Amino acid sequence: MQVAILTFDGFNELDSFIASAILNRMRGRGWEVQITCPGASVTSMNGVTVLAQQQLEFANQADIVLFGSGIYTRDIAADDTILERLQLDPQRQVIGAQCSGTLLLAKLDLLQGLPACTDLTTKPWVIEAGVDVLDQPLVASGNVASAGGCLASSYLAAWMIAKTAGIDAAIAAIDYVAPTGEKQQQVDATLRVINPYL
Amino acid sequence: MQVAILTFDGFNELDSFIASAILNRMRGRGWEVQITCPGASVTSMNGVTVLAQQQLEFANQADIVLFGSGIYTRDIAADDTILERLQLDPQRQVIGAQCSGTLLLAKLDLLQGLPACTDLTTKPWVIEAGVDVLDQPLVASGNVASAGGCLASSYLAAWMIAKTAGIDAAIAAIDYVAPTGEKQQQVDATLRVINPYL
Repeated sequence: MQVAILTFDGFNELDSFIASAILNRMRGRGWEVQITCPGASVTSMNGVTVLAQQQLEFANQADIVLFGSGIYTRDIAADDTILERLQLDPQRQVIGAQCSGTLLLAKLDLLQGLPACTDLTTKPWVIEAGVDVLDQPLVASGNVASAGGCLASSYLAAWMIAKTAGIDAAIAAIDYVAPTGEKQQQVDATLRVINPYL
Repeated sequence: MQVAILTFDGFNELDSFIASAILNRMRGRGWEVQITCPGASVTSMNGVTVLAQQQLEFANQADIVLFGSGIYTRDIAADDTILERLQLDPQRQVIGAQCSGTLLLAKLDLLQGLPACTDLTTKPWVIEAGVDVLDQPLVASGNVASAGGCLASSYLAAWMIAKTAGIDAAIAAIDYVAPTGEKQQQVDATLRVINPYL
């Protein structure tokens, strides 16, 4: 399984790295999860520079594509030189967005009239793009999901694993990363959020 | 407030970046949170290369020091060329460790007989170092804390903020990053974990 974590300048570390690290729990089963960027490197909203593992076009062939979030997403959503490089297809790809990444889902017409989740800052822009925004951590329909609030990234990653490799694999991944002494309650919370969308 | 996130080759992205991103919620109040490394860059356990924002010696003057976790921590704990660069002081610094980072706390004699938290993989090595390991997400005594299970990083960051800037600042940071629709329950869970150690 090839997984593209779309990560842009100004990215929020929580939104790219919580999901990528949890999805990487599947490495032993052959998954390749890669930070995918418009250029050679990206610098986060907090000044952390990360080298790209793949360029944007990698996403077009990936099995799973996750849009991270960041402080410049509105600019990216208006930048055709970036958007034109993405040719995604929810029929053959599992696609998800975290927080402001939902704005890119909307802009690329991947929501197709469905309601979405996003963070409170991005909410007015997503509504402006004609999308209903839900007050919940995650929503999905078919192969497309969106999540809101940075720490909901773990739910989005779990949904992606459950959707493609089964619920037991998702439970194992969440159990591993959950706080010591709270593993069962973290698994239960995750199942409550993702089960309606499997 | 100067904050050093100690990050080594083989690091776990969850353990360095959840904490650093939450601590960075304090940027508006002058906090400077920086990925602090032994060299110019580090590459994660999943192949992600990050440029260092500071070198290890920065930690010695920082107000807050957080030991991240990773797959090579046992090697680092045996490498005096790295450990000798760290001269930390729990009297004037707030110090915390996540997962295998607890092994470095033990090795640097910063636990001083206290029990600690760590992840299940690291647990036998921490016990071997003579430390009692607790089955809970976080424990602290005075200025030194340890946390176990990657997602417990949010508790460790919240404890550090509460300890140095007050509980209201910690609540605001966690509220911001919590999943949409679950903000109050995330704040409540955090307070249950950190309040006994404030």
